[in-house]
Amino acid sequence: MVEIASLPRNERGIETVVGILKQQFGERLQTGQAIREQHGHTTTWIENQAPDAVVFPADTEEVSELIKVCATHDVPVIPYGTGTSLEGHVNAPAGGICIDLSQMNAVIEVNPDDLDCRVQPGVTREDLNVYLRDKGLFFPIDPGANASLGGMASTRASGTNAVRYGTMKDNVLAVEAVMADGRIIRTGTRARKSSAGYDLTRLLVGSEGTLAVITEITLRLYGIPEAISSARCSFPSVDAACKAVTAVIQYGVPVSRIELLDETMVRAVNGYAALGLPETPLLLLEFHGTENGVREQAEIFGDLAAEVGGSGFEATASPEERTRLWKARHEAYWAMLQYRPGAKGVATDACVPISKLAECVTAAQDRAAELGLIAPIVGHAGDGNFHVTPLVYMDDPEEVAKARAYVSWLSNLAISMGGTCTGEHGIGQGKQAYLKKELGDATVVMSAIKAALDPANIMNPGKILAGDD
Amino acid sequence: MVEIASLPRNERGIETVVGILKQQFGERLQTGQAIREQHGHTTTWIENQAPDAVVFPADTEEVSELIKVCATHDVPVIPYGTGTSLEGHVNAPAGGICIDLSQMNAVIEVNPDDLDCRVQPGVTREDLNVYLRDKGLFFPIDPGANASLGGMASTRASGTNAVRYGTMKDNVLAVEAVMADGRIIRTGTRARKSSAGYDLTRLLVGSEGTLAVITEITLRLYGIPEAISSARCSFPSVDAACKAVTAVIQYGVPVSRIELLDETMVRAVNGYAALGLPETPLLLLEFHGTENGVREQAEIFGDLAAEVGGSGFEATASPEERTRLWKARHEAYWAMLQYRPGAKGVATDACVPISKLAECVTAAQDRAAELGLIAPIVGHAGDGNFHVTPLVYMDDPEEVAKARAYVSWLSNLAISMGGTCTGEHGIGQGKQAYLKKELGDATVVMSAIKAALDPANIMNPGKILAGDD
Repeated sequence: MVEIASLPRNERGIETVVGILKQQFGERLQTGQAIREQHGHTTTWIENQAPDAVVFPADTEEVSELIKVCATHDVPVIPYGTGTSLEGHVNAPAGGICIDLSQMNAVIEVNPDDLDCRVQPGVTREDLNVYLRDKGLFFPIDPGANASLGGMASTRASGTNAVRYGTMKDNVLAVEAVMADGRIIRTGTRARKSSAGYDLTRLLVGSEGTLAVITEITLRLYGIPEAISSARCSFPSVDAACKAVTAVIQYGVPVSRIELLDETMVRAVNGYAALGLPETPLLLLEFHGTENGVREQAEIFGDLAAEVGGSGFEATASPEERTRLWKARHEAYWAMLQYRPGAKGVATDACVPISKLAECVTAAQDRAAELGLIAPIVGHAGDGNFHVTPLVYMDDPEEVAKARAYVSWLSNLAISMGGTCTGEHGIGQGKQAYLKKELGDATVVMSAIKAALDPANIMNPGKILAGDD
Repeated sequence: MVEIASLPRNERGIETVVGILKQQFGERLQTGQAIREQHGHTTTWIENQAPDAVVFPADTEEVSELIKVCATHDVPVIPYGTGTSLEGHVNAPAGGICIDLSQMNAVIEVNPDDLDCRVQPGVTREDLNVYLRDKGLFFPIDPGANASLGGMASTRASGTNAVRYGTMKDNVLAVEAVMADGRIIRTGTRARKSSAGYDLTRLLVGSEGTLAVITEITLRLYGIPEAISSARCSFPSVDAACKAVTAVIQYGVPVSRIELLDETMVRAVNGYAALGLPETPLLLLEFHGTENGVREQAEIFGDLAAEVGGSGFEATASPEERTRLWKARHEAYWAMLQYRPGAKGVATDACVPISKLAECVTAAQDRAAELGLIAPIVGHAGDGNFHVTPLVYMDDPEEVAKARAYVSWLSNLAISMGGTCTGEHGIGQGKQAYLKKELGDATVVMSAIKAALDPANIMNPGKILAGDD
């Protein structure tokens, strides 16, 4: 585990608040060690910093009331969805109250004619899509994990579909949120666009619970496409694969997913699922449209891929065959874990302008090799976003140190290429060191906003801003 | 003209600042009455409130320096692009210094592989598209006027292409901006997505110069599509036309433009350009894609339109024929002016969930008729956004009063339908009365942000926030 600095604890305030909330919430407030630790960070190498209590509110009013209690006594609140975030977002470095929103999990309304819906923050993306299926609608943002929509909004999540459908910032029309003083606000309407005042929706999306707790989300939806096709193609190099990506996007093909797996990742999935793929960089694609449209899109991609040395191109619109083609991607996580048994996969992410993607991925491969790290790469290539997942024996301090140095090096490399230290995971605790390098004095403005909206710093303290502005 | 309350003037500060800046800028600071009035509001019925001086900075450093001078002496600064905004954004109700950014009009770089570019704020959208054409690229946001990109970012502009390409919020990757203390920040990188910290890009886009002056913009670009087709179809009612809009969007057709003209607007263009169109609601569409793709899109629309009573459907991919089909839209502004000679067209806008569009437009027609107003309607129907333009004899106070009451009624109606009082024009001075009705306590949060980032209220004072929070 990697130690993260703790922040000063307001012991007396915490004790008082836990007492008051216990009265109010009864069994819906939990203080057992196991449940507290489950609500701290559990997914990567960042150490677990458990909250002092976990509360399960039933509605927005309860969230508001409990934040008012915490505000009165200067006690931190940390919102929690499913705990699948990767940069320590749910940790409680100063202790405090975890607000577990999993019981606020109602789909409030779906408006098929308007292609939108309103949901509570505890609804997961898979639950929403099951709910929507028989209405012919879907919500496209897919970060991999079955995250809650509140958590996805809070971290500005994206994932494989972002190249076509955008990220949470593009698909959240409005939120209801509780501010640090308990005030409940609504940041927008169901209108699909607006020029009415400051864009508080986008300010709260990606603010990682440091400005407000999101208690309701209005989302854009999409009609399930008439046809979906998938394609797969191998390339002699990462550079060639990235050239194919650039070509298909410049051509204007509205590709829905375009995923890059590097040689190491392909080796891992071959080993795990006996796929027999050439152990060279691989692109997996998905197209949405009419039957003719998806056929044409796949053909155009096939032609463009061939021009840059692509081989083994396959495309299909049959659901079973699509699953087969994409198996390499679906099994990637489990394949990685088996590739180095006993190691922990510590995912990091970076995002660069697409023209720099090949250079950045290749450098990341070379650097991992130099350090002796095994670090498969999978990327949302159409956005220039990729994940490196060093497979680390956590009981080997030297290896952990190397992997940490590697993540640091990669973050700085992405920034030096005009990119960002995080395309979709967020800053949390893990990426604070890079935010200032990436955005300079913009962090001063962020700190001013934070201080204005949360002067006592009770909203998820210790996240995003390092406190040095 | 409609009077707008003036704000207290800091006479001594203004005098001092004009003196200092005159030393620094020489002939690039102008104080003649004509040029000052040209830099106040000129486009609608909102009265002209001229600044005390107009400065033409050459670069970001100069903008920073002049804002520092204004900050020291507590003098307002009002950024100015082309002056085409419609809600009084460029007025100077407390006097102060207009920053005319028209000389900062360089395209700094274009990155074809990344589909992005960096421009100074004075570049207009038409200039950018001329610059991009031989690179096979274009920037899609088209608000009608040949606005500057800085102004478009500041008002969160959109227009006819928004249904497919989004608005300025979706197409600005990052901005460089000068804050109220002269600090220069950069809100993002060229990465196509990021989860690094608060989304200051989206906070500044649409902030109408009240938080910062935008001095550089990183924009998303798109490949010019292989093929473009246009279509036109008449409908027996606004309701039938809106049903066709909903159907084509739900079907997932990636329509690029879908414009509604109501009966009055069709009559006006018939009279102006002898188009001989049936004087019933009309939809004009544009499709972008491959040759096969745009043909298929137009066919799908034709079928869906016929199901709801559409008639006179025409579609074409020939450039000349496309111009002919869209003539009704291109000539709409001039046609309106001729429809009631001597009247001023006072455009307003509202945006509602698409399912409410027919009801809202029909109510707007009925209400205009009740009041005896001639008010053609044209709408970006795919977004639920429409413009009503009462044609007003400005020397008839009773008619002006009726038209004002009408705009007020329409704003409240849109809000009551779950929409917004402005889909794309912005709040400025003209729509302040509705922001609180629309967003309630969210305006308290906006005011807190404004106070934090511009404590002396020198950045375009009197815009967006009415000062009652």
